Amino acid sequence: MIPVVSFVGRSNTGKTTLLEKVIKELKQRGYRIAVIKHDIHGFDVDQPGKDSWRITRAGSDVVVVSSADKMAMIKKPEAEMTLEQLVGMVKDGVDIILTEGYKRSDKPKIEVFRSEVSDRILSQESELIALVTDKHFDIDIPQFGADDANGIVNLIEERFLSQPAGEEIYLSVNGKEMGLKSFIRDAFIKTVSGMVSTLHGTENAREIRLTIHLP
Amino acid sequence: MIPVVSFVGRSNTGKTTLLEKVIKELKQRGYRIAVIKHDIHGFDVDQPGKDSWRITRAGSDVVVVSSADKMAMIKKPEAEMTLEQLVGMVKDGVDIILTEGYKRSDKPKIEVFRSEVSDRILSQESELIALVTDKHFDIDIPQFGADDANGIVNLIEERFLSQPAGEEIYLSVNGKEMGLKSFIRDAFIKTVSGMVSTLHGTENAREIRLTIHLP
Repeated sequence: MIPVVSFVGRSNTGKTTLLEKVIKELKQRGYRIAVIKHDIHGFDVDQPGKDSWRITRAGSDVVVVSSADKMAMIKKPEAEMTLEQLVGMVKDGVDIILTEGYKRSDKPKIEVFRSEVSDRILSQESELIALVTDKHFDIDIPQFGADDANGIVNLIEERFLSQPAGEEIYLSVNGKEMGLKSFIRDAFIKTVSGMVSTLHGTENAREIRLTIHLP
Repeated sequence: MIPVVSFVGRSNTGKTTLLEKVIKELKQRGYRIAVIKHDIHGFDVDQPGKDSWRITRAGSDVVVVSSADKMAMIKKPEAEMTLEQLVGMVKDGVDIILTEGYKRSDKPKIEVFRSEVSDRILSQESELIALVTDKHFDIDIPQFGADDANGIVNLIEERFLSQPAGEEIYLSVNGKEMGLKSFIRDAFIKTVSGMVSTLHGTENAREIRLTIHLP
């Protein structure tokens, strides 16, 4: 599975600034990165008068603009997309996914703490893999200063990026990711990749994607 | 399969304006729509100083911002995304996908023609399902005026949206969509949905998505 690490913390603790530093450091070490930012206030990405804005305003539920070096997509979902759905959408071709926000998800978390903003941390200790803080807490969790992107990335690398890539499977039903026991995983991987191998032009299959809609 | 219809034509023939009208008409008839626009000149969607811009500039290959009613994604792909990859990305939950551009794809096409801009059409007749034009051509293809969104949507509806939804399957290997003969389709659908039905919590499976990565 592509690892997902959530950066959480109260407003104004410097989450985005920290993320910038962590991204630069991961990038320098050669990783491909996706970031998913939860924006609870809503936001505006589009610019009046542009074609994508005209198409959205006309009523298109999804608009994509694609060029040689960039792809942009704007979607008005029927219900807020879950973190699982978003992960499913971005995971191709990246080594790690970082989120800003999503404090209620079950992903491993790094909390950003600043004494000026609050006097206690937000997360359960059991969810935290690290705390980025300007004061020491007496808890058994690695703690880093806000400038120590190097230390934070060392921890992320050691915990999530040092296993060699093996077979991976991701299964969702009606948008919900299914956890699979290892013999079920093996059964799915062997059955589906076996069936695919009987088709023409599937030598060196590295990525198989299958979507089935049932009435 | 979700139908894909491409609107093609030279620059300045009014493709985006026509698309706006077609989208409004489809929307009024209750369809959910995705639009994929091919922008050969490149484009800029992001605004300096915004968090998403900071995260992109720091080196993230993909940035997603998600709120209750909107999701925006910006991706810097390693190579230009193919229409097939883009279709795979947007197809969930929509009834039809319209493209602006992609004249070299194998999708059914509607060409927009304007005498001021050129004196001949761009597409092969065999690819065209309709021509939107300000002058009559002596060819055996339905022709519409640029204001006749109603007529164009009647044609699209009749050709692509009047079949009842059945079982559907989409399979890609290494990013390339595989065409499947009907007995192979059935074998995949029955095998995979049979395996899924043995898992807990998969009653009423309507959408199954499976991604397998092989080393």
